[in-house]
Amino acid sequence: MSAKIMDGKVVAATVYERVKAKAADLALRGVTPGLATILVGDDPASKVYVGSKIKACAANGLKSFHEPMPRTISQKDLLAKIAELNRSPEVHGILVQMPLPPHLNVDEALRALDPAKDADGLHPANQGRWIQMKSWKDVKASGLPLPCTPAGCMEILEHYGIPISGAHAVVAGRSLLVGKPLALMLLSADATVTQAHSRTRDLADVCRRADILVAAVGKPRFIPGDWVKEGAAVIDVGINRLPEGLVGDVDFAAASARAAAITPVPGGVGPMTVAMLLWNTVCAASHFL
Amino acid sequence: MSAKIMDGKVVAATVYERVKAKAADLALRGVTPGLATILVGDDPASKVYVGSKIKACAANGLKSFHEPMPRTISQKDLLAKIAELNRSPEVHGILVQMPLPPHLNVDEALRALDPAKDADGLHPANQGRWIQMKSWKDVKASGLPLPCTPAGCMEILEHYGIPISGAHAVVAGRSLLVGKPLALMLLSADATVTQAHSRTRDLADVCRRADILVAAVGKPRFIPGDWVKEGAAVIDVGINRLPEGLVGDVDFAAASARAAAITPVPGGVGPMTVAMLLWNTVCAASHFL
Repeated sequence: MSAKIMDGKVVAATVYERVKAKAADLALRGVTPGLATILVGDDPASKVYVGSKIKACAANGLKSFHEPMPRTISQKDLLAKIAELNRSPEVHGILVQMPLPPHLNVDEALRALDPAKDADGLHPANQGRWIQMKSWKDVKASGLPLPCTPAGCMEILEHYGIPISGAHAVVAGRSLLVGKPLALMLLSADATVTQAHSRTRDLADVCRRADILVAAVGKPRFIPGDWVKEGAAVIDVGINRLPEGLVGDVDFAAASARAAAITPVPGGVGPMTVAMLLWNTVCAASHFL
Repeated sequence: MSAKIMDGKVVAATVYERVKAKAADLALRGVTPGLATILVGDDPASKVYVGSKIKACAANGLKSFHEPMPRTISQKDLLAKIAELNRSPEVHGILVQMPLPPHLNVDEALRALDPAKDADGLHPANQGRWIQMKSWKDVKASGLPLPCTPAGCMEILEHYGIPISGAHAVVAGRSLLVGKPLALMLLSADATVTQAHSRTRDLADVCRRADILVAAVGKPRFIPGDWVKEGAAVIDVGINRLPEGLVGDVDFAAASARAAAITPVPGGVGPMTVAMLLWNTVCAASHFL
């Protein structure tokens, strides 16, 4: 079997169409959706990510407000900046680029965001709400901002018609940004969900039971092909920089010989994150009407 | 093998000792912790539950404020009552007894609670916060109110020294009150967690992999003995009324021949719910000092 490649650029393009349509509709009502990006310090990877977010805003009818801050900024000044952006009528979504330097308190910063401007979907008050909902349909209809990368994974699965209800999904990784929220999204869509992580015993055996296997561990080619069940759908969230280029958390060549469908790296989950960020922002702007 | 019986009355007694100690400490500072119970309508089971909560308050140094409301009450009047209790300086915890009649909006009622007075630990802003924490130790140290029944299950597992880290936990059931939060608590304690539910295919096979098996499906003796792995710990959350008496979701006799440890029904998880409710209330009162 040779796996169907699930192309994130194709799926992201469908999301950008929705973003543009909503932005155009907002423009008719005199509103330009605006995204503020807070970047603390000068981590090169973070700079690249924020840069691509700003570029995507320009390409899709959103304004962006870039707020670079020195690495040494105090928690107080970070909170003051967030408060200022919370008040700004031009800003509908605020993104605090992760990771923050270790002297800053991430939880407190996230809770300082106006939940209505939570572009990354990380405010606990928003997460607490959709997590309590009974179905993925309800979650999507709620208009609540969802964490971008896992929401992008759901878009890919839906676009390629991967059956979720009743499927056994295994999510390897339990990060705040990806693993944990994705497991909860798959659960809301009626998958039987196993969340695995660094303390999981016999991860190979756990992965081999997955109809939908999500790798979000951040280790290059950590999941070998023979951990993939014949006919599974594989979502590879990993983006690892090796001398030979970007590779995922899954051994792509070996896994695609067994999977029915798989996301490549690059070009799989990666392009979805920014698309969903813009989607959250235009949805937030609509709520301000 | 004959299973060790995990006695919820014994574990609840240890929680009540902590409750009494905290209440005594609060009394020294001039504070009597107070729990308000809102009971809409006259469902006999709900009346019994609320009655036992009020009785437990009296026995452990808490004041209770009972607020019965007619079944036909409007959402507006329910919210007004919640707002009134939010303002009351004598009330430190508020409990809205579930289920509410279908014309009332549960989500909105829960969100109307002051998160600092959320005795049942169901406010999404509270759930969103502890769900994001990295360890069960952090969750417990946070002082956030946790949903009572699943927090009680965790107390039982800890009291009886059941290893959680690295164990494969299977939670059958995904309710707002029990299954979903318990899966997240077990995950924070480093279990590999599978959440199963009515759409799960081959539930027998899923259950047989569990080192910790939680039954929270609400169907009498739904889980037969041969779904229990030899040596597993079984937590039976079910309380089903049959002509012969109360039975759990697990076939107790057959399961205890295979499990290493099991909670009985009645006398297992049942006694924990009220104990954890009182614990949430005295913790909330401490935060008001």
